[in-house]
Amino acid sequence: MRKIRFLTAGESHGPALMVILEGIPAGLSLTKAEIDRDLSRRQQGFGRGGRMVIEKDEVEILSGLRRGLTLGTPVGLLVRNRDWENWKEVMAAEPGGPEAKPVTTPRPGHADLSGALKFGFQDIRNVIERASARETAARVAAAAVVKKLLLTFGIDLYSRVVQIGTVCDHSELHPPEGCEVIENSQLRCLSEAAEAKMVDLINQARENGDTLGGVFEVKSTGLPVGLGTYTQWDIRLDGLLAQALMSIPGVKGVEIGEGFRLASLFGSGAHDEIFHGPEKGFYRKTNLAGGL
Amino acid sequence: MRKIRFLTAGESHGPALMVILEGIPAGLSLTKAEIDRDLSRRQQGFGRGGRMVIEKDEVEILSGLRRGLTLGTPVGLLVRNRDWENWKEVMAAEPGGPEAKPVTTPRPGHADLSGALKFGFQDIRNVIERASARETAARVAAAAVVKKLLLTFGIDLYSRVVQIGTVCDHSELHPPEGCEVIENSQLRCLSEAAEAKMVDLINQARENGDTLGGVFEVKSTGLPVGLGTYTQWDIRLDGLLAQALMSIPGVKGVEIGEGFRLASLFGSGAHDEIFHGPEKGFYRKTNLAGGL
Amino acid sequence: MRKIRFLTAGESHGPALMVILEGIPAGLSLTKAEIDRDLSRRQQGFGRGGRMVIEKDEVEILSGLRRGLTLGTPVGLLVRNRDWENWKEVMAAEPGGPEAKPVTTPRPGHADLSGALKFGFQDIRNVIERASARETAARVAAAAVVKKLLLTFGIDLYSRVVQIGTVCDHSELHPPEGCEVIENSQLRCLSEAAEAKMVDLINQARENGDTLGGVFEVKSTGLPVGLGTYTQWDIRLDGLLAQALMSIPGVKGVEIGEGFRLASLFGSGAHDEIFHGPEKGFYRKTNLAGGL
Amino acid sequence: MRKIRFLTAGESHGPALMVILEGIPAGLSLTKAEIDRDLSRRQQGFGRGGRMVIEKDEVEILSGLRRGLTLGTPVGLLVRNRDWENWKEVMAAEPGGPEAKPVTTPRPGHADLSGALKFGFQDIRNVIERASARETAARVAAAAVVKKLLLTFGIDLYSRVVQIGTVCDHSELHPPEGCEVIENSQLRCLSEAAEAKMVDLINQARENGDTLGGVFEVKSTGLPVGLGTYTQWDIRLDGLLAQALMSIPGVKGVEIGEGFRLASLFGSGAHDEIFHGPEKGFYRKTNLAGGL
Repeated sequence: MRKIRFLTAGESHGPALMVILEGIPAGLSLTKAEIDRDLSRRQQGFGRGGRMVIEKDEVEILSGLRRGLTLGTPVGLLVRNRDWENWKEVMAAEPGGPEAKPVTTPRPGHADLSGALKFGFQDIRNVIERASARETAARVAAAAVVKKLLLTFGIDLYSRVVQIGTVCDHSELHPPEGCEVIENSQLRCLSEAAEAKMVDLINQARENGDTLGGVFEVKSTGLPVGLGTYTQWDIRLDGLLAQALMSIPGVKGVEIGEGFRLASLFGSGAHDEIFHGPEKGFYRKTNLAGGL
Repeated sequence: MRKIRFLTAGESHGPALMVILEGIPAGLSLTKAEIDRDLSRRQQGFGRGGRMVIEKDEVEILSGLRRGLTLGTPVGLLVRNRDWENWKEVMAAEPGGPEAKPVTTPRPGHADLSGALKFGFQDIRNVIERASARETAARVAAAAVVKKLLLTFGIDLYSRVVQIGTVCDHSELHPPEGCEVIENSQLRCLSEAAEAKMVDLINQARENGDTLGGVFEVKSTGLPVGLGTYTQWDIRLDGLLAQALMSIPGVKGVEIGEGFRLASLFGSGAHDEIFHGPEKGFYRKTNLAGGL
Repeated sequence: MRKIRFLTAGESHGPALMVILEGIPAGLSLTKAEIDRDLSRRQQGFGRGGRMVIEKDEVEILSGLRRGLTLGTPVGLLVRNRDWENWKEVMAAEPGGPEAKPVTTPRPGHADLSGALKFGFQDIRNVIERASARETAARVAAAAVVKKLLLTFGIDLYSRVVQIGTVCDHSELHPPEGCEVIENSQLRCLSEAAEAKMVDLINQARENGDTLGGVFEVKSTGLPVGLGTYTQWDIRLDGLLAQALMSIPGVKGVEIGEGFRLASLFGSGAHDEIFHGPEKGFYRKTNLAGGL
Repeated sequence: MRKIRFLTAGESHGPALMVILEGIPAGLSLTKAEIDRDLSRRQQGFGRGGRMVIEKDEVEILSGLRRGLTLGTPVGLLVRNRDWENWKEVMAAEPGGPEAKPVTTPRPGHADLSGALKFGFQDIRNVIERASARETAARVAAAAVVKKLLLTFGIDLYSRVVQIGTVCDHSELHPPEGCEVIENSQLRCLSEAAEAKMVDLINQARENGDTLGGVFEVKSTGLPVGLGTYTQWDIRLDGLLAQALMSIPGVKGVEIGEGFRLASLFGSGAHDEIFHGPEKGFYRKTNLAGGL
């Protein structure tokens, strides 16, 4: 199997988001509904902005799939922006048309100011349109295909919210146990008690016209031993995972296993002791290092 | 300016071809008409197959362009396959539907047999659809954008047919002289005499139900001295050009400058002597090495 | 300027570490002493293991530099392992020789077990030799060259230890202020008080045959506005920095700016407000987002 | 198995050439002698320049190999320049020392002039040193390792000279038949008659202080059906082979199969008809397309 690559394109209020996914082998069973399910999961969540109500993302599969099976060719996906109808003039590709009112106030915590200074834009909209979390819809569509591929190897992925503002969910996730609870939770939480407190905090922030940060956890099961490599710096799995996660707009920190908490421990308490049993083979009782 | 990358997607009888072009700087003036012009040039030519009559390619610019100027973001392009209407069932992405009649006879000179054996396909259509010259329409669309960018640096590209079967056009091209002749020639030839003989040969082949090969020449003007590098094997310009050209379906040879003809010469006759004049600076009177 | 790439090679007890650094422009002033200075900084530090005493790393510049100026060609560097003399037999490249005693006990917190299972090694030494922090010496040598290049653009880098075990240094670093203190500190600390407590903790761990984790901070000055890009996921600067840092053996978490602390804040307190003054132009009074 | 990458470094009269080869799997049997054999083959040949007499290339294996087996880690190789002793001052990495006499006459057919203009060098030696065929010694060393890996899959490579100046060797090579003749030929020729004429021509050129060009052929046996791909332009095998060959200094043309000769044929004579037999499975009687 060769390396899987993908590029995304698309402005937030342009006609559509695109993604080309290269390297998916032939013969993988896949349907539009499977991709739509993940696009829909992305849009759920208590307290999301108004844009989420406007867009009900659906994928158009333009290539790479025939009769429910991948062809081994590039998978080309399109996610139309429903809001496009209202932006056809402002975001028109062609020159001409009435002048659009420019955005001139850069938002903090965004690429607005530095993007406008970098490219010499008078209209910050030129930055906003791509430096937008909406771009992640294209990544989600691509990831839905890759997740399906991983499933054929018995590899599954789970994620949940573990912190919103000062409220932490200290429960431990042992997938697939509890995963249904998470899927049905409006905040993708495992602990109902923590979720209730998070909802309160979000309501409070909303009343004050404020927003909140948070932390999410991603776990994987079924990974083969020896995935990844220590042989060259730029193909180490820990680095590649950190890149993928940190490149999500708004993400400011990535930890593997216990991450920064390990910094305050002695080595004797920070390592996952190796055991061996006749049936289990090698195993560990703890997972402080995140399996890497 | 960062490296320009692109990926294409799309089956020959699927809904559309796609291309994502990454790395075009912001502020480049560009219109749909400029891309369509190159798509149309690709479809012209005496003696082309019937498919060319069906498809009148037009681009849809889905991202990267606003009000006639690039945004510095990925340029996402779509070229719809007009024939799609007739293939909606056979090439459907979703499973189900009446069984399509499989293609079972591999054509020589194509990837049909090796592709089917590689992926274990029962239906050679799964190979044909991507191992098709139609894929180059997506490359042409991307190249139209890059050509516009090169033009802002005064760099222009010219191409013409110099051989069809045994008929050679031995005229020399000194662009931009003669380029209008080429654009108006139905075979993209500079010499009218050669063109007439080529047309005769094509008609003869057509009568016999046969096809013909040929040779084309690409020239560039306005390139800065020192483009390319000798420092590392995989970024040498000669290698990158050879890769780009050889990767076009049907191309079986690439020469730079006089290419293989140089093999039969003595070094004294094969090199481009360097001259220097007060006004011209350094110059050469010959271009056997193709400027590299 | 083109993309800078590098590959490292070398086992921990093999003859040498190597690095090839591709893309450094011509004309950069550079000396062996400048690289050796950084190699030496890597080896300092209170409480380091015994290996650090054996190896006094020195670089051999094998290519890319002539008469103190880079040539624009690949910079090839060698760092010999002084310990090689004692390992010539055990680590010989050639077959034959007396059997070496294999390492069979995998250490927790290392790639030992998964590496051995992955490659089917009987001797864990085959893993240990490359999955070793010693590999970073090659990275440090390459980075010394790149740092010199960045300096010509007025860009400088600073780093310090801010936590060892449970002891944190809460002081703020405003480079270049305080940087001399850090360089002269045996733990690369800014606060002398914090350093004293860290030394105590390290001594305590050592007495117990234990080890300690920690946290370091890297800051940069002189960066131009608009460095990095939001246009494509895989070239975003935040992701690339996270990859580079997480790929260092032993690093389990990466934060940009205030990182995970931002998760517990309201948006109103987590953003760096943008100001503008007649002399300063745009500026911010805080740097919670780490400048990205 | 992951993608194999390599970078080379080294000036022609510097201390050494280096190569780091990344992606060779663990457990491949390999010896220094096997690499040296290919380095030696590169240096043979009737009528080679004087440099070939000075340099008797030998590899130093600095990493990636232990006790005759690869470790799965980067293979780091060094080929020392024996001539370095005479160039220690002129090519010193450190600044200072007596001024070296600069090279100021650019040779035609080399990167001398464009390289000097590109980088603003006063001394053309700065270009000559890397834009030199000597760089290919590092590629040969890397290729010797990869050839050994291919052999474990039953894939072998053969090459020979088929033209020097106007003298062509029209014999056909069906490896491994005749390969011993080639290895023992001073010009790496299959036909003794052609070789004799080539030697005459070389002697004639030498008497006139002139040089000659030529053409070589590379063949491979044991390749699996379906190697390569038609799915994306930049990973097509034909393009990658063309890049690798065209990036060799002095190579000005690359053909696959019959290459440019196909241009003058009708399609009916230019394709390799597909046959199928009960024992052979699918086969072809001709190989005009070069197997791609």
